[in-house]
Amino acid sequence: MTEDFFEKKLIARPITAIPGMIEFDIPVHGDNRGWFKENFQKEKMLPLGFPETFFKDGKLQNNVSLSRQGVLRGLHAEPWDKYISVADNGRVLGSWVDLREGDSFGHVYQTVIDASKGIYVPRGVANGFQVLSETVSYSYLVNDYWALELKSKYAFVNYADPALGITWDDVTNAEVSEADKKHPLLKDVVPLNTEQL
Amino acid sequence: MTEDFFEKKLIARPITAIPGMIEFDIPVHGDNRGWFKENFQKEKMLPLGFPETFFKDGKLQNNVSLSRQGVLRGLHAEPWDKYISVADNGRVLGSWVDLREGDSFGHVYQTVIDASKGIYVPRGVANGFQVLSETVSYSYLVNDYWALELKSKYAFVNYADPALGITWDDVTNAEVSEADKKHPLLKDVVPLNTEQL
Ligand SMILES: Cc1cn([C@H]2C[C@H](O)[C@@H](COP(=O)(O)OP(=O)(O)O[C@H]3OC[C@@H](O)[C@H](O)[C@H]3O)O2)c(=O)[nH]c1=O
Ligand SMILES: Cc1cn([C@H]2C[C@H](O)[C@@H](COP(=O)(O)OP(=O)(O)O[C@H]3OC[C@@H](O)[C@H](O)[C@H]3O)O2)c(=O)[nH]c1=O
Repeated sequence: MTEDFFEKKLIARPITAIPGMIEFDIPVHGDNRGWFKENFQKEKMLPLGFPETFFKDGKLQNNVSLSRQGVLRGLHAEPWDKYISVADNGRVLGSWVDLREGDSFGHVYQTVIDASKGIYVPRGVANGFQVLSETVSYSYLVNDYWALELKSKYAFVNYADPALGITWDDVTNAEVSEADKKHPLLKDVVPLNTEQL
Repeated sequence: MTEDFFEKKLIARPITAIPGMIEFDIPVHGDNRGWFKENFQKEKMLPLGFPETFFKDGKLQNNVSLSRQGVLRGLHAEPWDKYISVADNGRVLGSWVDLREGDSFGHVYQTVIDASKGIYVPRGVANGFQVLSETVSYSYLVNDYWALELKSKYAFVNYADPALGITWDDVTNAEVSEADKKHPLLKDVVPLNTEQL
C-alpha cells in the first residue's frame, strides 16, 4: 500500500503525456474486517471524465491475473480500451507507451498502482506492469473480446527496449512470457492508425 | 485453491434451490508468471444463461473487498443483481438465502468459491461469505448504485440464525461488522415482493 491508501477522495487526473489516459484516485474504506472499495462506479466516474464511449458497443469483459513478485507482463496494445486496477494489497509498477500515430507516439507514462488507484487506458496505448509485492491480483475491464486467432493483429512493444526509458526494477531477471520477449523495439513498431483502432 | 483449479471448461450450473441463481466454472490459465482468467466475458456467458437483463439499465459498478481469515460478511439482499468472484488465491465459503416471497423463501445454498468459480445472484437473494484463506480479494459486479441513505430499504437476514441451517466455521469467533450482528432472524424478515426488487 502507498502512504495515503485509505479514504482518498474520488478524483480523476488526465495524463497529459498520453492523451485520453486518466488516473483515478479510488476511495478505500478500511475497518475491522479489511477494506472495501467501489473499484468502478459508472454514475460517479462518467462525470469525472471516464469516457461514455467505453460502453457504446455493449461489450464487457473482466480479466483478472495473479502474478508473483518480479513478474513483468506487457507491453500490449490491443484494439480495446482498458480500465485497470489492483484488487488486493499488492502493488505494481504500471507502464504505458503510446503506439498511436501522431505527436504522442512513443510517449511513456509510469506510476505505482495499488488498490487506491484506477487507470483508464485508451486503445492503442500499450499496457504493462511489473509486480512489486509478493503477489498481486490485477483486475481490469475491457470493451472488446480477445481471440487467439487475432493475436497477430494486436500491437506490442518490447518491454526491454532502452529507447522507451522505462525504469523497471531488475529487468534482466524479470519473469516474463516467451511471447513478451519477442516483441519489436519501438523503432520497428508501425504506429497504429484510427482504422486499426 | 480447490482440487481442479486450472483449465476447467466454462460451464453454467443453475442452482435449483434458489431460482435464477447460477454457478459458473471459470477457466483459469496457469503459467510461469501466475495465472490469468476471463472472470466475466459477456459474449461467452450470455449464451450459457447469464441474464441479459443484468445490463438492461446500463448501470455498472465493480466492488472489491479485501478480508482476513475468519471474517464473515452478510447476509445482504440489496435491490440489484450480483456477479460474484474471488480475484486471488483465496477461498471463501459463500452462502445465500432466498428472501423473495414465494415457494423458495428461506432456501439456502452454500459452496466454497475460489478464483475458478463465478456466481450469479439475482436481486432479493441475500449474499454472504466467510473467509477460509489467510486473506481474500472478493470482487463483484452489480447493476445498481448503493447509497448510505437507502440502506434502511435494503433487506438483510442474520448470519447467525440457526434456522438457516448454514454451516459456518466457528461462527461465534467470526469477525463481523456491528451492522451485520443486528440483522433480523429469518422468521422476522418480511419477504421481498416484486415491487421492492
Ligand atoms: C488476454 C487474454 C488471454 N487469454 C489467455 C491466453 C493465455 O492462455 C493466458 C495468458 O494470456 P497472455 O496474453 O499471456 O496474458 P498477459 O501477458 O497477462 O497479457 C494480458 O495482461 C496484460 C494486458 O496488458 C493485456 O491486455 C493482456 O493481454 O490467458 C484469454 O483466455 N483471454 C484473454 O482475454
Ligand atoms: C456496499 C457498499 C459499501 N460502501 C461503503 C460503506 C462502508 O464504508 C464500506 C463497507 O460497507 P458494508 O456495507 O459494511 O460492506 P459489506 O459488509 O462488505 O457488504 C458488502 O459486501 C457483501 C455484499 O453481499 C454486499 O452487497 C455489500 O453490502 O463501504 C460503499 O461505499 N459502496 C458500496 O457499494
